[in-house]
Amino acid sequence: MWKASLVMDPYMIHTNGDGNLSPVLDVHVNINGKSSGLGKMKGRKARWSVKPSDMSDKTFNPIRAIVDSMKVKPNPNKAMISLSIGDPTVFGNLPTDPEVTQAMKDALDSGKYNGYAPSIGYLSSREEVASYFHCPEAPLEAKDVILTSGCSQAIELCLAVLANPGQNILIPRPGFSLYKTLAESMGIEVKLYNLLPEKSWEIDLKQLESLIDEKTACVIVNNPSNPCGSVFSKSHLQKILAVAARQCVPILADEIYGDMVFSDCKYEPLATLSTNVPILSCGGLAKRWLVPGWRLGWILIHDRRDIFGNEIRDGLVKLSQRILGPCTIVQGALKSILRRTPQEFYHNTLSFLKSNADLCYGALAAIPGLQPVRPSGAMYLMVGIEMEHFPEFENDVEFTERLVAEQSVHCLPATCFEYPNFFRVVITVPEVMMLEACSRIQEFCEQHYHCTEGSQEECDK
Amino acid sequence: MWKASLVMDPYMIHTNGDGNLSPVLDVHVNINGKSSGLGKMKGRKARWSVKPSDMSDKTFNPIRAIVDSMKVKPNPNKAMISLSIGDPTVFGNLPTDPEVTQAMKDALDSGKYNGYAPSIGYLSSREEVASYFHCPEAPLEAKDVILTSGCSQAIELCLAVLANPGQNILIPRPGFSLYKTLAESMGIEVKLYNLLPEKSWEIDLKQLESLIDEKTACVIVNNPSNPCGSVFSKSHLQKILAVAARQCVPILADEIYGDMVFSDCKYEPLATLSTNVPILSCGGLAKRWLVPGWRLGWILIHDRRDIFGNEIRDGLVKLSQRILGPCTIVQGALKSILRRTPQEFYHNTLSFLKSNADLCYGALAAIPGLQPVRPSGAMYLMVGIEMEHFPEFENDVEFTERLVAEQSVHCLPATCFEYPNFFRVVITVPEVMMLEACSRIQEFCEQHYHCTEGSQEECDK
Ligand SMILES: Cc1ncc(COP(=O)(O)O)c(C=O)c1O
Ligand SMILES: Cc1ncc(COP(=O)(O)O)c(C=O)c1O
Repeated sequence: MWKASLVMDPYMIHTNGDGNLSPVLDVHVNINGKSSGLGKMKGRKARWSVKPSDMSDKTFNPIRAIVDSMKVKPNPNKAMISLSIGDPTVFGNLPTDPEVTQAMKDALDSGKYNGYAPSIGYLSSREEVASYFHCPEAPLEAKDVILTSGCSQAIELCLAVLANPGQNILIPRPGFSLYKTLAESMGIEVKLYNLLPEKSWEIDLKQLESLIDEKTACVIVNNPSNPCGSVFSKSHLQKILAVAARQCVPILADEIYGDMVFSDCKYEPLATLSTNVPILSCGGLAKRWLVPGWRLGWILIHDRRDIFGNEIRDGLVKLSQRILGPCTIVQGALKSILRRTPQEFYHNTLSFLKSNADLCYGALAAIPGLQPVRPSGAMYLMVGIEMEHFPEFENDVEFTERLVAEQSVHCLPATCFEYPNFFRVVITVPEVMMLEACSRIQEFCEQHYHCTEGSQEECDK
Repeated sequence: MWKASLVMDPYMIHTNGDGNLSPVLDVHVNINGKSSGLGKMKGRKARWSVKPSDMSDKTFNPIRAIVDSMKVKPNPNKAMISLSIGDPTVFGNLPTDPEVTQAMKDALDSGKYNGYAPSIGYLSSREEVASYFHCPEAPLEAKDVILTSGCSQAIELCLAVLANPGQNILIPRPGFSLYKTLAESMGIEVKLYNLLPEKSWEIDLKQLESLIDEKTACVIVNNPSNPCGSVFSKSHLQKILAVAARQCVPILADEIYGDMVFSDCKYEPLATLSTNVPILSCGGLAKRWLVPGWRLGWILIHDRRDIFGNEIRDGLVKLSQRILGPCTIVQGALKSILRRTPQEFYHNTLSFLKSNADLCYGALAAIPGLQPVRPSGAMYLMVGIEMEHFPEFENDVEFTERLVAEQSVHCLPATCFEYPNFFRVVITVPEVMMLEACSRIQEFCEQHYHCTEGSQEECDK
């Protein structure tokens, strides 16, 4: 019957008398591999085979891969302390400012921000961002601002407009894993330049420059840094710019932690130090305003020598049309968020982070076998593990795994950031937790510390 | 001096005595094309040349291209009426429900939704979406739901996971332009299958099936349709599914206008009619809840025969990690939005749209030279232009251009949807505007209508 109907009209469906769908719809109507009388049957598939694309195969998130494959359970006798996620909101001790929340409610109440915005964001919101970041050394207008769905999408758009598959980009090691995840999913090669822990994580500029070749589409500079918590000095930034200028390579400046630096140090937006290197600066509300979930990011286009020109700008606009920008309520709230958040709020966040950083650094520096590097900003601190003193553990992944199993303290192994034998500590947790975590780390290290041969004196200390 | 310093330490920056940056930073330090003593200088670029990527070049939005190149000014004596944008919020006559706004405020006040959500969305929000769309014929759990930044990103992720460059997808003609924009930017070929205006825009199934080959990654089915306002019957959907089953091709169902159908007709979610064809259904809050700017979309994974399997699911999850999902405040509000929006709200929207559709269809059907097709849902109506009766105009683009210039009424030429000699009318405008627009269109047509030879009788009517 089905066969007959196929011959008569293959596009007719027969339903059972009761109106229900005939079960024939549930089988593959591919009788004996013949095409059942249908005419134009070129290359039809014999059976189902749906495979994920190469792009999705190539989209690899090392943090997920490493953390998800950690199969250990925390110690049931100790409450879990997670120092692993770069999310300042998880402990409730760092709420955003009431003005920020109020700005959202006002935007909702106005009823003006429910429709589609231009894909790069409302003009008025882009004007606000431009004037917030404008300065004489690096002027900005609305046309230089593109609003995005988080800083992540800002980075994605910048890479997508600057690099073709087969080209390469330079990224920091240790560095935020998204750069590699995005680049490799797009078929862009990554080359890792080194940050030097002994120089407060400054860039090894010689090595950086040696990596640049004719296929280099851009250098990513992340300042202040995740995972290092480091902040580059003005003179170091100038040297980075000199390399870029010499090599004629544009810079993608990931400045999501911009202005999040401790009192004894100054944050310099990269673009304020150059008048010729074309720079795409990526940022957003996530960290400084403590609302990472809101997914409001931006790209600031600094191009005073017209090197990007209209082509790169147009390219960014076209790419933004693929998914049409960030939530309009947040866009509508942007003006008040940028203008009305009190200085105190920023100040309080930073003095809290600084105090936690000092605390954590001090405590960990006193632990034999650990080598923390003092941070100057952002929300992280990197800790070197003298692996020779912990022979039980093969690497940082195993070290942090055992730390979870025994002490219920979770830190990210810096292998996630391409930097083995370190781990990263998030310093946004409440002070008591920070202290408790440090003392558990101390206990853990004491239990596993072994003297290396020829360093008995050290162990006797 | 600079040269000397380069030789001594190329990474040292010399500043002027007053501490300002030396102007040398502003020039390309590439003296006579030589590499100034630096060692590893392979393939360095002689000068700046930053070009947008092929991907951004290939990202082409026909609506923007056509509309932006329309250089005409509206008639200064008539107020502009824009029937061109699929944004129900622009005229203020279709606000979202107060419950929807309240849900957002509650989410803000709770303070629980400021941090990062999982990149595919909060589990609790995905549970809500799953239970909202769950039905016995097409069961859904949280694991079958991925939240995205608008339906646009839902479509992007689905295409990105299903198709490799070099493969093809089948998309409707006329159809929503984003499909082609996204596919071509990813190097995926598009093949257009025809919708038949004389059959209420049903798919030409024979032609659809003839287009499928071994490289076909999926068929996009958009129901209810933008730009047609058409709604497929159950039996037509079953026939589409039979083609997919026969050809073993998965379906991307763009159901963003799901349930937006007029009283005399029923919307059937595609997945409820099949137990074997794997279907990714894309939707979101944009249209039904009248908040397109909020950028909350979803993918519903229907895969009862495990044809997508874990691979496609994992692929979607990995791709979602690139930009980390939609705004968490909207995610937090989702439960109340889905549960508390009163039936009345949906009902009122639809009866308004239906009444406007009738009005517009009636008015335009009476105009010689126009052939509107009666819509059954969504927010649009397509109008055929009998071009032979408007010899002054070369095509639909010129027709709609002159309509702006003379009558200040803006409709999208259906060339934007790959369907020349039609234009699309948006029916979300207030009734008076709808009427005024129709009467201006009438005046316009009357002024430009020419009888064709041999059809004098018609013109005498
Ligand atoms: C260095 C760096 N860049 C970018 C991002 C992404 O920011 P967003 O959450 O706005 O996408 C992060 C988030 O942790 C980060 O640490
Ligand atoms: C058919 C169709 N699909 C998808 C979309 C995109 O929806 P969103 O605004 O949620 O990205 C639209 C918007 O107009 C549409 O008409």
